Amino acid sequence: MTNIAILGFGVVGGGVADVILKNNDTIARKTGEHIHIKYILDLREFPDHPLGDRVVHDIGVILSDPEVTVVAEMMGGAHPAYDYSRAALEAGKHVVTSNKEVVATFGAELQEIAAAHHVRYLFEASVGGGIPIIRPMSSCLAANQLFEVDGILNGTTNYILTQMIRAGKSFEDALSEAQKKGYAERNPKADIEGIDACRKICILSALAFGKSFSPDDIHTEGITKITAEDVAAAEMYGGVIKLIGRAGLSNTEDPESDVFMLVAPHVILHDNPLSSVDDVFNSILVRGNAVGDVMFYGRGAGNLPTASAVVADIIEILSHKETDVFVPAWTKASADALFCIEALPYAFLVRMEAGDYMAAAAAIRAAYPDAEILTAADDFKGTIAFVTPLTTEKALRDAFPTPLLSVIRVMP
Amino acid sequence: MTNIAILGFGVVGGGVADVILKNNDTIARKTGEHIHIKYILDLREFPDHPLGDRVVHDIGVILSDPEVTVVAEMMGGAHPAYDYSRAALEAGKHVVTSNKEVVATFGAELQEIAAAHHVRYLFEASVGGGIPIIRPMSSCLAANQLFEVDGILNGTTNYILTQMIRAGKSFEDALSEAQKKGYAERNPKADIEGIDACRKICILSALAFGKSFSPDDIHTEGITKITAEDVAAAEMYGGVIKLIGRAGLSNTEDPESDVFMLVAPHVILHDNPLSSVDDVFNSILVRGNAVGDVMFYGRGAGNLPTASAVVADIIEILSHKETDVFVPAWTKASADALFCIEALPYAFLVRMEAGDYMAAAAAIRAAYPDAEILTAADDFKGTIAFVTPLTTEKALRDAFPTPLLSVIRVMP
Repeated sequence: MTNIAILGFGVVGGGVADVILKNNDTIARKTGEHIHIKYILDLREFPDHPLGDRVVHDIGVILSDPEVTVVAEMMGGAHPAYDYSRAALEAGKHVVTSNKEVVATFGAELQEIAAAHHVRYLFEASVGGGIPIIRPMSSCLAANQLFEVDGILNGTTNYILTQMIRAGKSFEDALSEAQKKGYAERNPKADIEGIDACRKICILSALAFGKSFSPDDIHTEGITKITAEDVAAAEMYGGVIKLIGRAGLSNTEDPESDVFMLVAPHVILHDNPLSSVDDVFNSILVRGNAVGDVMFYGRGAGNLPTASAVVADIIEILSHKETDVFVPAWTKASADALFCIEALPYAFLVRMEAGDYMAAAAAIRAAYPDAEILTAADDFKGTIAFVTPLTTEKALRDAFPTPLLSVIRVMP
Repeated sequence: MTNIAILGFGVVGGGVADVILKNNDTIARKTGEHIHIKYILDLREFPDHPLGDRVVHDIGVILSDPEVTVVAEMMGGAHPAYDYSRAALEAGKHVVTSNKEVVATFGAELQEIAAAHHVRYLFEASVGGGIPIIRPMSSCLAANQLFEVDGILNGTTNYILTQMIRAGKSFEDALSEAQKKGYAERNPKADIEGIDACRKICILSALAFGKSFSPDDIHTEGITKITAEDVAAAEMYGGVIKLIGRAGLSNTEDPESDVFMLVAPHVILHDNPLSSVDDVFNSILVRGNAVGDVMFYGRGAGNLPTASAVVADIIEILSHKETDVFVPAWTKASADALFCIEALPYAFLVRMEAGDYMAAAAAIRAAYPDAEILTAADDFKGTIAFVTPLTTEKALRDAFPTPLLSVIRVMP
């Protein structure tokens, strides 16, 4: 029997308890032992919960109990989650977490502390909810030089965009429906402005390329400016708009080349498997030099899917009891080592106001002779939409110095 | 440095050598050591290959060399692949394999021998080529009681069906194109009759439910009888025909309930993510009681993708050097423990000949008042297509004792 402590008894922490209580026999069949929840750390009391008697309010009780070998941190937020995780590792306890903010910001440091104390810091649940992605990338794809990771990493924004695409809704109406259904929080900023997706792509990028960048240094656009007209223009071009976290090597042949990374709405053409990932589902496409493209798909959030990943990490620890697992280190990297996003080659879907269709079309052809103009002359209502050939955002802005209604990257 | 031996230097064996030679520095960064190919066992000589000097013809050389810690078996076929794998395990060497025939038939036994000799028998490459599926199922989803696995497990048949769907080709024309492109072998029997997919679903089922059934006991239909008319009828119903390997618990709530398993063409409705898996791609959908549905997608064959999985297993062995990994055993199970496929509830897409539309429609309504008749009266050309409500194949055959043109299961 392995004794664990749960830090934070909210939605995910409660889900972890539920999964362990429900599936403990299944888990024991797979690992040879049961999991016992010895402590639950929370500010609140849970007198009516079957595990209510396990609740403590002092992290010291957990840190000083040698019977506790694994700490599951599901508190959310940077502090005190980071501080407690660090203290647990220093006390020689394994830590598993669903906390993407802590992993994205402090992951490199906490992995180093774990290695120094011969314990493990695992975070399968920090990206993609229950979708197996962290271990598959670090283990099953380890024979590859990976060169790109693209993901639909946030279920809330994917639900909103799916509503805009399917039902022609405005962003505001789709957001308010997502809030009604409980898919978006009352304060949806972290989701709709891309902050959540940014933390996740930082984690995936660190896994793929070994360099840990601060989320603050990453070019991050949300979906608040996407309009029904943008959605319609993307459809005319044969695609859908998705919020994508994207990271890759600027030179696919050179693992030491600068990494590019961004979070932004992208037009995804229908032949890309990410295009059919709808509603609250997440999906991550990984590209490697041996395996080609592989994709992982599932529910990116929710108490039970996320708990599935947290408990999988606990099982991983139970299954491999040796104390010195070789874990490749993440190197902390500064923004200087990031490839400049304005110089990253992209085709762009552009919408702009124009007084006269022929004049606008001529201006577009003058700047980009190979541009594809999506708006037909007899559909012209004062705005024109087109897709550039491969260019850079800088060149595009130089070519059209007047304000553009929208500039959306097309996924290569 | 770890010394390995490659058994079988064909397409996959050559791919494994290529991936190791190309990515050895990447691998060393992830594991702390390089891989050295000490021996290659093959009947042939490879005088012009850079590793030509490693070729041996006697398995005894490899078995008796204590420096060889891992044997990678890529010979294909049951014998002598099984015999050599067994001998290597008994000699205290880890074995990794891409050989689905050996894993499906002898997996339970070889895992037992591996455990007894404190080594590991790993087979990530045996299903789905480079797609991470074996370790994600056994490790990342270990917190779940899994209750169903559905997969597009054979790239050749998926390519043929995609050609039939997209270009309206006949089965024969699509097969001959697949052969021209090298996607189908000259003797395509193992692919088009579902034998390859059957071995793979047996492996996935054993992983999910712990019971290893013989492929010979599994209900297996190929795609040779699928016609352009079937494809058109599926489209009228809002779906596509895919060859599916499907295994599940007959009672989703009871992990001890009988397992159902079959390989057969299924109509997949467009809202199922498997419906958009086209060409030679494979995809596996796994359903668990915590995670919900997760899907894994990628190239199911090819030398480099398969090699990616083989080398990942070698890396897994290098990363976890402890000798006693707890591996849940597969229990050999007899056909008696299989749920009867004829009694498995399904909706069926049925096509039948009929002299008279109104009489045929009346007969269908008499048997199944809720059937959906797909053929419109004014399109009637002597055959009629319909979809039954949930029923069983036995009940369907009893209701329509005359020979039916086609009976295709609709994926629930």
